[in-house]
Amino acid sequence: MYLSTLFTKTSKDSTSDAHSKNADLLIKAGYITKTMAGVYSYLPLGLKVIRNIEHIVREEMDALGAQELLMSSMQNKEVWEQTDRWNDDIVDVWFKAPLHAGGEVGFGWSHEEPIGEMMKRYITSYKDLPIFVYQFQNKMRNELRAKSGVMRGREFIMKDMYSFCTNEEEHENFYQATIDAYLNVYKRIGVGDDTYVTFAAGGAFTEFSHEFQTICDAGEDIIYINQEKNIAINEEVLNDKTLESLDITREELEEVKTAETGNIFNFGTQKAEDLNLNYTDGDNKSIPVFIGSYGIGVSRLMGVLVEKYADDKGLAWPEAVAPFKVHIVPIAKEDEEAYSMAKDFYETLKEKGVTALFDDRVEMRVGQRLGDADLLGMPYRVVVSQKSLDAGGFEVQKRSEDDSKIMTSDELIKTLTS
Amino acid sequence: MYLSTLFTKTSKDSTSDAHSKNADLLIKAGYITKTMAGVYSYLPLGLKVIRNIEHIVREEMDALGAQELLMSSMQNKEVWEQTDRWNDDIVDVWFKAPLHAGGEVGFGWSHEEPIGEMMKRYITSYKDLPIFVYQFQNKMRNELRAKSGVMRGREFIMKDMYSFCTNEEEHENFYQATIDAYLNVYKRIGVGDDTYVTFAAGGAFTEFSHEFQTICDAGEDIIYINQEKNIAINEEVLNDKTLESLDITREELEEVKTAETGNIFNFGTQKAEDLNLNYTDGDNKSIPVFIGSYGIGVSRLMGVLVEKYADDKGLAWPEAVAPFKVHIVPIAKEDEEAYSMAKDFYETLKEKGVTALFDDRVEMRVGQRLGDADLLGMPYRVVVSQKSLDAGGFEVQKRSEDDSKIMTSDELIKTLTS
Repeated sequence: MYLSTLFTKTSKDSTSDAHSKNADLLIKAGYITKTMAGVYSYLPLGLKVIRNIEHIVREEMDALGAQELLMSSMQNKEVWEQTDRWNDDIVDVWFKAPLHAGGEVGFGWSHEEPIGEMMKRYITSYKDLPIFVYQFQNKMRNELRAKSGVMRGREFIMKDMYSFCTNEEEHENFYQATIDAYLNVYKRIGVGDDTYVTFAAGGAFTEFSHEFQTICDAGEDIIYINQEKNIAINEEVLNDKTLESLDITREELEEVKTAETGNIFNFGTQKAEDLNLNYTDGDNKSIPVFIGSYGIGVSRLMGVLVEKYADDKGLAWPEAVAPFKVHIVPIAKEDEEAYSMAKDFYETLKEKGVTALFDDRVEMRVGQRLGDADLLGMPYRVVVSQKSLDAGGFEVQKRSEDDSKIMTSDELIKTLTS
Repeated sequence: MYLSTLFTKTSKDSTSDAHSKNADLLIKAGYITKTMAGVYSYLPLGLKVIRNIEHIVREEMDALGAQELLMSSMQNKEVWEQTDRWNDDIVDVWFKAPLHAGGEVGFGWSHEEPIGEMMKRYITSYKDLPIFVYQFQNKMRNELRAKSGVMRGREFIMKDMYSFCTNEEEHENFYQATIDAYLNVYKRIGVGDDTYVTFAAGGAFTEFSHEFQTICDAGEDIIYINQEKNIAINEEVLNDKTLESLDITREELEEVKTAETGNIFNFGTQKAEDLNLNYTDGDNKSIPVFIGSYGIGVSRLMGVLVEKYADDKGLAWPEAVAPFKVHIVPIAKEDEEAYSMAKDFYETLKEKGVTALFDDRVEMRVGQRLGDADLLGMPYRVVVSQKSLDAGGFEVQKRSEDDSKIMTSDELIKTLTS
């Protein structure tokens, strides 16, 4: 893409979200815009990052045998009343609005109930199970406080998955497979080393639930980790009983600040009993379904990536989620040879399927253009000038590194396509 | 995909939406589920149709030079008050909910105001223009009545695009280019011959706006067309003045029922004046921006395709939007040669990138399986049995045709990949 065609522009203005590093940088770089507190819109570059994260999550969910669907945002009161979760005293994040036709509607903050209700149509016998479904959706939660930029919004994009199994063993197998799939997601996105499967408070059915906590100074959680034993415990369940059951002492644990980037939850048969979602086994006996729920915060992960990788020059994206892999800066149009080599390089990358941003804004000050490349944060910056050609080629700098080096076009194409 | 792995099942039950052909069939075939009146969720097959329509629309919008973004559903009261469109007397389809933190939020039924407001950050000079942006989004409208299935919902998926131009000529060029792009969309989706650019009531700025009306008995509109002169007029502007200005008489026009599947609208500079969205020209003079708005009803188009192509046996999708191109039915597993040839055929299609559904539910009655193939409505049904092999190959029937023919696997692969 030619940078001049992108309608967004970078800005040095500190914004109304200066308290949040991720929102501040994403707004300055033109990746997002703020609608109101806790509500953001995704501009072209930001939407590309979201789609790249979604693409990775989708591949991993598909590999689990899960099927994608898309539920409505609007929610039916009667369905949620079955589990008493329409009640604002029990769920305090509902947005609800009156219907002109009478009654009221809610706006989806989660989807266990409507998906469970829908499954009554498709689950009758044990032969119909297991079923795994997921969706990407903007959830809406009426949070009293909205801070931390896109890491905790009133509207945010989430992948939520639901499993329907015949028994505990089948459920447990999928639950474990999902843990592995989630760890793949975090690894591919670039936060694998800093993300822990964490013991957290369970529900009626299990002693613990599992959260995926990513080390992040801007996170709102505190967990206790032991890297060697690969154990992580959420603050809320850090007590003698937990320590004993995990065979670890308080002294062996290190306290870290984290953001909850995923969670998985075992409802056992409770949810199905509330919803009256049953299957018949081989003996024609009616049995409630085992239900699990599995979330990944897509827009929150975008925020965590900013918090984790950005530096004082701007954003810095891991390759797997960057809007473009390469940012090409031809220094001046008057350097005809350099400019035309830069353009050929851009065309070659396009042919080879390597995404690139070409900064054709040659009338602009060089300092501003190089600053923009740093702020926008693509993994590779390639500067092309008569000077770089004299030195033997293109000046290549990884966004994550301080030093640049000179490479020929061929060498660089080899590196970028390998 | 193996049909046995799909969690949805077909059903003969008439549903609560029996009054709407599209909702009735889509629910019976397991493409959608109903959350409440006018609110539907998209199950795996339905989501594929939606994504296929979106893919075509996206290609055409990208070709116009428009950039994709994604605005929030949640809406800021102050932004809409600038144009007096927060007012329920002026816009009667708002859903609004109180914020726990104080104040209230709306849920997006359209996005001119927030996108215009956001553009204040990016539009300063004439050099920044023109700008074209679009998004795919679920819009929410508090309609008093919801009928016609997915053709008029309280929540529905729409592509909305907005243009920002320096002057009328620039605006007019984009407006005309968009008409052509829209006609491409309708043609590619399979309703090209039945879709008319229709004169409709204009706004403050123009005598007419343009609607895209697709002939459809389940539609809610009536238009008057003359095919030869390629003129179509909405009922609301059918009067002597309109007829005279278009040089046509009432007698030359035919009355048809239609569904509005797209609209384009010229706000002139009015919207920008209300929002105070200006640019400076070469003489540093501040001038309001020309704004246009362009919608295509994605989920509505899905409904129109059902109404138009389905028959008494079930759905029938045009190739460009079908969830799968081919539906393969091996008659029995005992016909070992036939079953293994059917499977090889399926694998070959997969390799060649032709999407196919393989009905591996061989324990089921053949009549039910063939009936499912008709109901699900993929463009090609391929039956493989010892009988078909004895006759010389596979029995191929286009969903849109009554007769089947025998083709060899190679012939068929050639047909399907050409």
